[in-house]
Parts: sequence; structure tokens; C-alpha cells
Amino acid sequence: MTLEKYSIRREKLRRKMCDEKITTLLISYAANRYYLSGFELHDGQENESSGWLLITEKEEFLLTDSRFKDAAKEFFPEENIFIYTGKKYEELSTFFQKKNIKKIAFESNALSFAEAMNFKKFVELVPTRNLVELLRMVKDSDEIDAMRKSCLLNHKVVEKIPNFCEKNLTERELAWEIEYAFRTQGASSLAFPTIVGVNENAALPHAIPGDRKIANNTLCLVDTGARLHEYCSDQTRTFWIGDKESARFREVKEQVCLAQEKAIKYVRAGVFCKDVYAKAKESFEQQGLAQNFTHSLGHGIGLETHELPSLNSVSETKLEAGMIITIEPGLYWADWGGVRWEYEVLVTEDGCEIL
Amino acid sequence: MTLEKYSIRREKLRRKMCDEKITTLLISYAANRYYLSGFELHDGQENESSGWLLITEKEEFLLTDSRFKDAAKEFFPEENIFIYTGKKYEELSTFFQKKNIKKIAFESNALSFAEAMNFKKFVELVPTRNLVELLRMVKDSDEIDAMRKSCLLNHKVVEKIPNFCEKNLTERELAWEIEYAFRTQGASSLAFPTIVGVNENAALPHAIPGDRKIANNTLCLVDTGARLHEYCSDQTRTFWIGDKESARFREVKEQVCLAQEKAIKYVRAGVFCKDVYAKAKESFEQQGLAQNFTHSLGHGIGLETHELPSLNSVSETKLEAGMIITIEPGLYWADWGGVRWEYEVLVTEDGCEIL
Repeated sequence: MTLEKYSIRREKLRRKMCDEKITTLLISYAANRYYLSGFELHDGQENESSGWLLITEKEEFLLTDSRFKDAAKEFFPEENIFIYTGKKYEELSTFFQKKNIKKIAFESNALSFAEAMNFKKFVELVPTRNLVELLRMVKDSDEIDAMRKSCLLNHKVVEKIPNFCEKNLTERELAWEIEYAFRTQGASSLAFPTIVGVNENAALPHAIPGDRKIANNTLCLVDTGARLHEYCSDQTRTFWIGDKESARFREVKEQVCLAQEKAIKYVRAGVFCKDVYAKAKESFEQQGLAQNFTHSLGHGIGLETHELPSLNSVSETKLEAGMIITIEPGLYWADWGGVRWEYEVLVTEDGCEIL
Repeated sequence: MTLEKYSIRREKLRRKMCDEKITTLLISYAANRYYLSGFELHDGQENESSGWLLITEKEEFLLTDSRFKDAAKEFFPEENIFIYTGKKYEELSTFFQKKNIKKIAFESNALSFAEAMNFKKFVELVPTRNLVELLRMVKDSDEIDAMRKSCLLNHKVVEKIPNFCEKNLTERELAWEIEYAFRTQGASSLAFPTIVGVNENAALPHAIPGDRKIANNTLCLVDTGARLHEYCSDQTRTFWIGDKESARFREVKEQVCLAQEKAIKYVRAGVFCKDVYAKAKESFEQQGLAQNFTHSLGHGIGLETHELPSLNSVSETKLEAGMIITIEPGLYWADWGGVRWEYEVLVTEDGCEIL
């Protein structure tokens, strides 16, 4: 295993810390911890952290409990692993004293109020936001490679959906066929619960696959993704199941794909996210459909399904080469259904590449 | 669907709030939200809440975003659903003003420091801990029924493990066979990543199933559980794979099962958790093995794998009828492996029932 990439990422973070006059930073957001160290992408459950990273100007420490000691040794020399036991904060206080740490910056959206109050008893706290998330926006070459593979698997699975549907499945059964296909081709889990929406259900932003049969000659929206070697994929397709494709479906699909094409053509390093969103919105406006496009255009994707940047109407973030974003316009009618079409694209200096 | 059980749980919570002089409580912990309302057991990802519950003396409100509006209507009348959009905290401030809410208690371990600071701008905050978690310790009849079914499925799957192992699998392949068995018999997901540890790996508290083959005549520890109708199961068994069971394995297994038996015999409403732990520890001490029992004896289980109470050496919690806890002693040697044996038990007035 090459640990060098983590060290490079930490050095990038240290330069950012330096700019912000931060000498010590506590990393408590699980995906950020993994990104910077390779240690544990996931926490046990909502109230159970697998450990925190402490990044100083010259060193880094993993603060964790004894269950993770062996796993930690793969990523840190033993002197950089601090194991707390029952009296976590008393022990951390002693450790901080020993290291002469009197002030730390922390991820204010990833440390609970109670945890922050515990730290406050022995160290000065400086809240920060998105320091690592902003680094994670631009993927390095290892990540781009992993994202290509993850997205390729998604294509392979999504292509099979019309075949799966020939088996007269329920929404729930189709979701399981998709998951099974991902898992038996190397994915460790889904990236998010698969959305399967038939007819009107396709208009629901949060359609949970149920026991409704996917009948012949219906519209079926599928939004799915999986983790392959820790990196997420996310694609939506809307299929006509059966041989009597409705004219309305065909028309709406064309309207959506036209907006997607216009947005993708506009993507390149240097443009604002809000302007990419505007390209899709404008396309729908020209077709008199703006009010049926009800969500943002897309989002960054990588170790998590939803990462920065967001492609919405207000985002002032400028695209950079190496960002990977989804472009997923959709049109919805509560009494009919909806069509969404989603690609992942890699931003380049002079355009983008559909993964 | 019967919504009455949620209403009964909220009334219990209100009595507790009354004891603690709390008039309004914000619920941000996902499993607590689901327990009290039926709405969404899971959040989208670590930094994405599906919504918060606001419990006042007479009413309850779901605060969420527009994606969840349709899902929310299954559990709340529309006037009790508050949808925030881009300017979440400004909109919440207006809502709180309208409802004349000036002070709220909140779950200090489930609201980030940043979120708490946002609330602090317009409402007085009172931190609380474990108000709902303590209610959730004692299962109601619906929950006991669900836990019985979930644990029964676990038994069915765990019984098949020796058969699976005849196929000359790797640890990873065995983990997948187990997951597949759970999923194709109704489980929505695993409750936690399955631990499969062969020989020395069985001594690791956090063994990740790898590409090591489960050879003939080896020890194999499996700790696994799944969610069935939202309720988790959790059982560990340690198998000898092959027909030449080693004498040491047989002996250690007997030592572990003896400690487990003694602890289970002691379980009944009214005893302290630390004393149940002590029964197992004492059994190991009598066998000169105390130093090889390196973790707590068990934990509550229900909507989450790890719930209160914890059965450790210091827990002053008294068992109550209706609690469901794991009893999972183990003995470990880094150079040999380990044996853990785990049952889930339902505490009754005069003893307990192994599920």
C-alpha cells in the first residue's frame, strides 16, 4: 500500500492551515479522516467515532480507542497513535499538555456540541468549516482512476436494467437485482439507497422502492450508485419498459437530454457552478418547462455521494480541472411522473469528459 | 400503519421532559427521530440530516427539506411539517417566533457545534443527554416482536455458516454469503459489517474479512447481524472448520460458554449491569483467564446495534424487564486466536429469555 498520497494531501492541508494561521487542526469528519490518512472511511454508528486525526505543523496523530489499534498501525507509526480508554477527555487533556497544544481548530460541522464543550475545558477552540472538503473537490490522479472504475461499473449495471425489467419485477426486486449486480462485481456497498420510481413515483424526489410491479409499458426512473474501492458512483436513467414507448415520455426525455447536453458543453475549468446550472435552466425556460425542473443540477462526488461543489442557482464556486461532478437535470409532473438523466463528468482545462 | 405507538412513546418522553422542566425538545439523532415518529431511520450521509423533530408540551413538528415532504406526510399532518429551504436558520427563527418558542432543550451529542451556534442566535439552548436513548432501553411489545423475528433470522443464517465454509471460501466470500442469506430472507441491510476472523485474526476486535482462505481445520470467528423491519440482530459464534477440532479450541469454547452461562443465569430485572459483567469476569478469574477477556460483556440492541445499557465493569444501570441485551464474553490470545459466543437476551422480572 502506498501511504505517500496521504502525506501529500496532508501537506496540501498544512499549506492551507498556514494561510489561515492554524497550527493544530482536529479532523472528526470520517471521510476527511480517511482522505488524509487511509484510516477507516466509516464510523461505527452515528454516535460512535472510529477516531480523530490531529494535524500539527510537523506531525499527525490518530486519537482512537483500543479496538482500532491494529487497524491504525497500518497507517501510523505506533508513537503517532494515541489510544484513549474510559476517561477519554482527561486522557486527551494530558496528551495535549504533553505536546504543548493549547489551541486547536476543529471541524465545527463534525464535532457535537457536547464534544466541543468537553474539549473547551482544556484547550482553546477555533471553529472552521470545509477546510478538507474544499481540498477534496479536486481529485488527484489516484482518485480519478478510482472514479473511472467506479463509474464504469455503474454503466455496466445500468445497461442491464432493461433486461432485469423483463422479469416482471417489483420496484424492490429491481433495486435488489441492481445491488446484487454491483456487489458481485466488486462493489463493497451501495453508495446510497437505490431510487426506483414507476410512473407518478418517478416524480418523487425520495421514492423508496416498494411492492409495486413494474408493469409492461410504464416509465421507470432508476437512480443508483455503489462504492468500488471506496469511491462512489451515481447515475440516473429513465427507461420506458415495454415496446409501446409513449410520445410524451420520448418528448420529455429529449427535453431533459437537451438541457443536459447544453450544460455539459458549458462545463470547463474557470466557469462558475451557478452558470452551469443556469445553462440547464435556460434550456428548460426556452421550452417553457422551467417550473418542472425542481432541484439543483448536480454535485461533486468522490468518497461521498454528495460532495462540494453544488451546482445550484447561487454557487459562486469556480470549476477546476480535476473536479468530478454530476450533471442531472430532470423534469417532473406529480400526476404523470418524471424523467431524470445523470452523467458524471470530469472537469478539464478546456471542457469535460463524461465518465 | 399504526401511528399510535409513536404517539405513546412521545407521551412517555413528555412525562420525562416535564420531570426535567423542559417544555420544548429538539430531536436531531436519527434513530430517536424514527423511534418517536416513524419518519426516516437514517440520514442521507454524515453531514445530511433528513430532518429534526421538535417536541413541545402539546404538539410535535417535523423540520425538514422539500425532498422529504411526501415521506413526511405519512407520519405528520401537513400543518405539523415545516419545510425549510435555502435559508434554513432564518426560516426556523421565524417559525420559532410564530410559535413563541424562546428556549429549547437539544441533544448535545447529536447537534454539531456549528448547528448549535446557528440556533443560539435566536433561541436559548439547554443541552441534554440520552433522554430518548434511556426510553429506548426498554422495548415495547411491537419492538420485542420485531427483535424476536430479527434474531430468529440471525439464528437461521448463523446455522448455515459451517455449510458455507465447506465451499472453501475466503473470509470475504464467507461475509458475502452471510449477507446474501440475510438479504434474500428479508433483511434490508446488515446491522454492521460482518467480522470474519480466521485463527489469529479471531483475536482482532476489528477484523475486516480479507482474501485469506478459510482452510480446513482452522478456527473461524463470525460476528454478524442484520436489520429486519428496522430492528438489528447481533450474534457471534466461533466455529471449528474441519473434522479435527483442536483440544485447545474445545477447551476455550467451554471456558467462554461457562462464563456466558453464569452471566445469563444472573440476568433479571433489578440487577446492576456491572454485576452481570462481574459474573462473567469472575468465572474467567476462577479459571485464571481474566486478562484474556478484554472487552465489555455486552450492550443493548434495537434500532441500533449498540444501544444503552452497556454491560461493563462500571455501569450503574439497573436491568429492567423489556430490555434486550447481548451477552458476549470472549477470550483472546494474539498468537493463537480467540473464541467469542454471543446471545441476545430479553430481560424479564425473574430472569431472561434467550432470543
